[in-house]
Amino acid sequence: MIIVHEPAEVARAATGPITFVPTMGALHAGHASLVSLAAAGSGTVVVSVFVNPSQFGPGEDFGRYPRDLAADARLAERAGADILFAPTVETVYPVGFATTVDPGPIAMDLCGRTRPGHFAGVATVVTRLYGLVQPQRAIFGRKDYQQLVVLRQTAVDLALGVDVVGAPTVRDADGLALSSRNAFLSSDERSRALALPACLAAIAAAHHAGERDGTHLEAVGREHLAGLAVEYLELRAADRLGPWTPDRLGVALVAARVGTTRLIDNILLDPAQPGSALASAFPKEPS
Amino acid sequence: MIIVHEPAEVARAATGPITFVPTMGALHAGHASLVSLAAAGSGTVVVSVFVNPSQFGPGEDFGRYPRDLAADARLAERAGADILFAPTVETVYPVGFATTVDPGPIAMDLCGRTRPGHFAGVATVVTRLYGLVQPQRAIFGRKDYQQLVVLRQTAVDLALGVDVVGAPTVRDADGLALSSRNAFLSSDERSRALALPACLAAIAAAHHAGERDGTHLEAVGREHLAGLAVEYLELRAADRLGPWTPDRLGVALVAARVGTTRLIDNILLDPAQPGSALASAFPKEPS
Repeated sequence: MIIVHEPAEVARAATGPITFVPTMGALHAGHASLVSLAAAGSGTVVVSVFVNPSQFGPGEDFGRYPRDLAADARLAERAGADILFAPTVETVYPVGFATTVDPGPIAMDLCGRTRPGHFAGVATVVTRLYGLVQPQRAIFGRKDYQQLVVLRQTAVDLALGVDVVGAPTVRDADGLALSSRNAFLSSDERSRALALPACLAAIAAAHHAGERDGTHLEAVGREHLAGLAVEYLELRAADRLGPWTPDRLGVALVAARVGTTRLIDNILLDPAQPGSALASAFPKEPS
Repeated sequence: MIIVHEPAEVARAATGPITFVPTMGALHAGHASLVSLAAAGSGTVVVSVFVNPSQFGPGEDFGRYPRDLAADARLAERAGADILFAPTVETVYPVGFATTVDPGPIAMDLCGRTRPGHFAGVATVVTRLYGLVQPQRAIFGRKDYQQLVVLRQTAVDLALGVDVVGAPTVRDADGLALSSRNAFLSSDERSRALALPACLAAIAAAHHAGERDGTHLEAVGREHLAGLAVEYLELRAADRLGPWTPDRLGVALVAARVGTTRLIDNILLDPAQPGSALASAFPKEPS
C-alpha cells in the first residue's frame, strides 16, 4: 500500500477500476470490513482519510475528532487497501471553492433536524472526492444509514457513474455499533450506550414475533432508552426513508446523546426474513 | 446527425471524446457558432436541447420559451453536430430527484439578484447532463457571461473532469447580441434594445481611449440606457466577477428589460489589447 496526498498520484498508481472507501480516519474494524469488501473485488482499492470540516456544525466535535494517520495506514493496509489518499484541506477545498451539493429535503430529516448543514457537507465532499479519485464503486457503512441514502441519491441524481454500496454494521461483542466516536465514552457512558442496540434488538424481536404496528414497535424500543437524551427513534421505509408500511423493508433508526457524545444506530426490518437476533437482523439493504 | 432521447443512445452512438453543447433549443446563429467550434475538434459533437424548468423563476418565461425541435435539428446538423440529445423532463428529473448544485455566493450576484434560483438551476441541470452525456469538453456562449463563470466554478469545484470553454458572442449586423429571447421583441422594442450594445461599445471605446476609472466608465455606458428598465450595469473582474481593477481583464455587464423581455449583454475590457470597436472588443476570456 502507498500513502499519497495528491489526486494525480492516485491516478498514476491505480490499475483497473477503483473501489473507493472514503473515511474521516480514526479507522476501526468497521472500516476494515469496508476495505475488505472492496478488496474482494478486482481493480484498485483507494481509502481516503479526510476529516471534512464542512460536515461539522458549530459546537460539534471537529476539533476533538480523533486523528492518527500512521495507525489508519496500518489498519487500511492490513485490510487490503492499495492506496491511502490523505489530501490536505487545501487540496479538497482550494481557494475560491464555493459549491454545495444539497441533497434536498432528506438533509433536513432525522439527523438533519439537529445537524442542518451536515448532509450537504457530506454530499459535497464525497462528490468532490469522487471527482479527484474517479472510482467506479464506493463503499459506505450501513451504520450511517441516512448518509448512505443521501449518497445514493446524490450519485443517482447527478449521474456520477459511481455505484454506491452499503456494508453491514460491525458491532462489538456487547452489541455496540463500532464508531470512531465510541472513544469519547467513559466506562459508565459505554454501559449506558448499550441501550441503543438493546432498543433496536427489542424492535427486531417484536417485528420477528409478528408485530407490524409502527407505533407499537417504536414504543417497544423506547422502553430501553429511558435516561438517555434521545434525539429520535423512528421506523422508516429503508429505500428512501419515507413512511414505513409493514409490507416493505423497513429500518428503525435511533440517535441519542450519551454524556456529550452523540451516537446513532439502526436495524433493518425485513418483512420476508424477519431477524430474530441483532446479528442476523441486517438483511441486504435496498439499492 | 442522429436525434436521440436516451442517454444510453448517446453512449452507443459516440465515438471518441465528446464535446458537448448544452442548449435550451430555439437555436440561432450564436448556437451554430458553438457547434461549429465543437465540430472543429475531433471526436463526437453532442448538442442537447432541454428547456430546463428549474432555472426559470415564478413568473418568468418558461411557458412561452420558444420550442421547435425540427428547426433546432436542421440548424444543429448544418453546424456540424453528430448527435442531438433531446431528453424528456422525466429523463432529466426522474421521480425522486431532489439534489441541487448550489454555486454559492456568485449565484446571488448580478443576474442572481433578480433570479434567485436561476444559477443553482443551471448548475444542477448541467452537472446532471454531464453525467448523462459524459463529455470531455463543454462549450457555452460568452453572452451569458455569469453562467459561464458559474459553470467553470462548478466543474472545478466538483472536479467533474469537463473542460468548460467560452465562445464569443454572435451579434446581428446592428450589434444586438443573438438571443432566443430576441424573438419576443416588437419592432419598436428591438430598436430600443440596441441601447445595450451601444452602452457596451461606448464603455469599450472609453476604455480604449485610456479611461480607467470604473465609475466613469459605467457613467459613460449609462448615458445610453436612458428610458430602459436597467437591472444593473457593472464592471467586474473577468475571471470570477470580483471587483475590477484597471490592470486586470475586466468585463462590463448589463441587464435590462425592454417591454416584458429581459436582455443581458457584456463586453470584455482587456488592459493589454483594448478594443476600439464592438467586433474586436471580445478578447479571449480567462480560463
